[in-house]
Amino acid sequence: MTIVDMSSVNAFIPGRAELTAHQASMIEQRDRLLGPAYRLMYQKPLHFVRGEGVWLYDPDGRRYLDTYNNVVSLGHCHPDVVEAITKQVATLCTNTRYLHETILELADGLLSTVSGDLSHMMLTCSGSEANDLAYRIAKVRTGGTGIIITETAYHGITDTVSQFSPTLGEAVPLGAHVRTVKAPAAYRSGPNVADRFRRDVEAAIADLKRHGIKPAMLIVDSIFTSDGILPEEPGFLKGAVEAIRDAGGIFVADEVQPGFGRTGNHMWGFQRHGVDPDIVTLGKPMGNGQPIAGLLTRHDVVEKFGRSSRYFNTFAGNTVSCAAAVAVLQVIRRDKIMDNAREVGAYLLEKVSALRSRHECMGHVRGAGLFVAADINAEKAMQISSGALTASVVNAMRDDGVLISACGEDHNILKIRPPLIFTRDNVDHFVEVLDKALEASTR
Amino acid sequence: MTIVDMSSVNAFIPGRAELTAHQASMIEQRDRLLGPAYRLMYQKPLHFVRGEGVWLYDPDGRRYLDTYNNVVSLGHCHPDVVEAITKQVATLCTNTRYLHETILELADGLLSTVSGDLSHMMLTCSGSEANDLAYRIAKVRTGGTGIIITETAYHGITDTVSQFSPTLGEAVPLGAHVRTVKAPAAYRSGPNVADRFRRDVEAAIADLKRHGIKPAMLIVDSIFTSDGILPEEPGFLKGAVEAIRDAGGIFVADEVQPGFGRTGNHMWGFQRHGVDPDIVTLGKPMGNGQPIAGLLTRHDVVEKFGRSSRYFNTFAGNTVSCAAAVAVLQVIRRDKIMDNAREVGAYLLEKVSALRSRHECMGHVRGAGLFVAADINAEKAMQISSGALTASVVNAMRDDGVLISACGEDHNILKIRPPLIFTRDNVDHFVEVLDKALEASTR
Repeated sequence: MTIVDMSSVNAFIPGRAELTAHQASMIEQRDRLLGPAYRLMYQKPLHFVRGEGVWLYDPDGRRYLDTYNNVVSLGHCHPDVVEAITKQVATLCTNTRYLHETILELADGLLSTVSGDLSHMMLTCSGSEANDLAYRIAKVRTGGTGIIITETAYHGITDTVSQFSPTLGEAVPLGAHVRTVKAPAAYRSGPNVADRFRRDVEAAIADLKRHGIKPAMLIVDSIFTSDGILPEEPGFLKGAVEAIRDAGGIFVADEVQPGFGRTGNHMWGFQRHGVDPDIVTLGKPMGNGQPIAGLLTRHDVVEKFGRSSRYFNTFAGNTVSCAAAVAVLQVIRRDKIMDNAREVGAYLLEKVSALRSRHECMGHVRGAGLFVAADINAEKAMQISSGALTASVVNAMRDDGVLISACGEDHNILKIRPPLIFTRDNVDHFVEVLDKALEASTR
Repeated sequence: MTIVDMSSVNAFIPGRAELTAHQASMIEQRDRLLGPAYRLMYQKPLHFVRGEGVWLYDPDGRRYLDTYNNVVSLGHCHPDVVEAITKQVATLCTNTRYLHETILELADGLLSTVSGDLSHMMLTCSGSEANDLAYRIAKVRTGGTGIIITETAYHGITDTVSQFSPTLGEAVPLGAHVRTVKAPAAYRSGPNVADRFRRDVEAAIADLKRHGIKPAMLIVDSIFTSDGILPEEPGFLKGAVEAIRDAGGIFVADEVQPGFGRTGNHMWGFQRHGVDPDIVTLGKPMGNGQPIAGLLTRHDVVEKFGRSSRYFNTFAGNTVSCAAAVAVLQVIRRDKIMDNAREVGAYLLEKVSALRSRHECMGHVRGAGLFVAADINAEKAMQISSGALTASVVNAMRDDGVLISACGEDHNILKIRPPLIFTRDNVDHFVEVLDKALEASTR
């Protein structure tokens, strides 16, 4: 079975690289047992058997620096999370139709990180389910159905959410009630990004209304991950949020990727922009790997939905997942994880930026905390697209034991997103390998 | 905050019963922190701190016989599952974009329980996500959007799946592309249930087409759980499955509730009916509490979807959830769990049926394996609805330390669904308490 799926960034494409017998055998089993929908990363897919901190280990004991993981944000197999899961799973695993302290402790901890208006937490199993639930609530709250997103957004894979996740590719159609706006990229289109973004959102609202569609929500990943990681300038979301509210819709901050301290200065990406979302959706790092996600919202936003529709999700809010998430929150506070994201993130940004003087293909470098992006631009003489050059860099780094990936419309943006326990030594190692990969790929 | 939600069976309704200070305090915290969408079970909600086998323990050490749990089918805190999770969570928790043996072992094990045509396994985090993914695949496969369900069906809570889950109540509208048919209940409407069900499905197909909607799928819970548990007569699904296929749609067997051996004679409920589904969806007991769900399907059904749309779900198929599910499959086989479900289930059915001679309100009793239902019918002289009488029985049993719930359009069907390790002694205890509750509620 040969799958060539150019819409999937950094996916394994059969026949492009020599595989070991072991890799080939496992890939054959996957194709046979999991079918044609699954993708592997890298030209030579990786098989891991153990993880510890920022390191992943293959069956031969070779270690890889994991610089592409916002699920195990506290590092692989963090002892506090492992202990919390181990203890709870041997004691009780049950659902939210019974009383249990842990879910209340989790809600209390999460809600203490946001303004008092956001007073309720609801739990799901995945970030997709969280954005799906946010939309269900938005429809009941606003009476509308229209959705505004950025043009390279990713919000998840349920049937409904896939209709507002353009990065899934052209085979997954956007909904007739969905409008896309340009992502607010100051470095590409100049300053006054706030004004332009507000105007674009206003135009999308007008277009929805012209088609008889009442707006329900503007939803953005507050660091614009799949649009290429766009942190600048802080505050640029304000005007667009006002616009959607003026039109009767709500603003949903998708914190599945930027949340839980990744951006360094704040627990949540939207806080960099000084806005108060109506709903904040949470996911990936919430249980450091244990499946748990959810949302925070105001009472008035969820009141009608809660009263009339109720909500139960068998696994969501189970005692084990809640115990993992409580441990994650405790470690973030106790070990000052956010300070580390800010300080080591600044060092990472400085060191990656410095490579620009040595490599002409390195374009704009930007970031917030431990979320850094670098554009790769191929020169005409190289006879290779920028996306292909980026893939070459990513795969050269993989061969040298460092894991990152790419993003952006042209697949030419390096996406650097290590666990939040990354150290300055890890940065030095990372930058050394990136430097070599850039050298080798442009030689 | 007072929520009266009569559409939710056996939900706690504030003000109906005296609560302890501890219960009242935890409920106040839930209302404040989790908001208005969450429901508790029973008139006096329960707080559990520990589970073991078929028992749940409250903070005072009082134990409750859990006869309403199809998640921890192997019993609370099953040692093999606890060990599998404990070991894997300390070793590696990562996703399906890397190679890993455990997901292949799980696929191999699950696919060995079905006919060879069903050759692929795909994983999700919840049963809702599984049915949601089944619909996405059905749309791509058939080019249609129409869905046929039974009139009291429940398939999940994503935005799309809630539109074909009528038990969520009238506040959650069915989709314009959804048609409902009467559940095939031989005991209510006489024999020839297969013919009638086929004719009803054919009429629904004709109505979809008359509205310009191409059928995509017929989806049924193969034991019709929320329609009141309808096992008879085996084989009645065949005609309806032929009808949906003749119309270009596919047949999806929702095994989230009946699956994993519950019905005693077969691993999956659809196997009682001698049909081959195009997609089988799995959930609840799959990881004995760990969030994992998914589907099995044929290559030709998923081929186009897989090639064009691909599929990645961050938490789904993570190594820890897969390890839990592999352990569940091993225990089901090693400990002959299905034999126990069949034998103890037959004993349970016999003992519950025998209560009919002592209690006039006990109507039709039926079941398959450890899934038993009993209709409760109030007499006119009692001046209480059948649903209210059923609630009274359920809450009296809860007060006496035995947990069950109710289902059905009129909420008057006792839903008896213990873990599959239930023993004959457990049955005796259960029936004794049910007998007393029936006596007390009709006195």
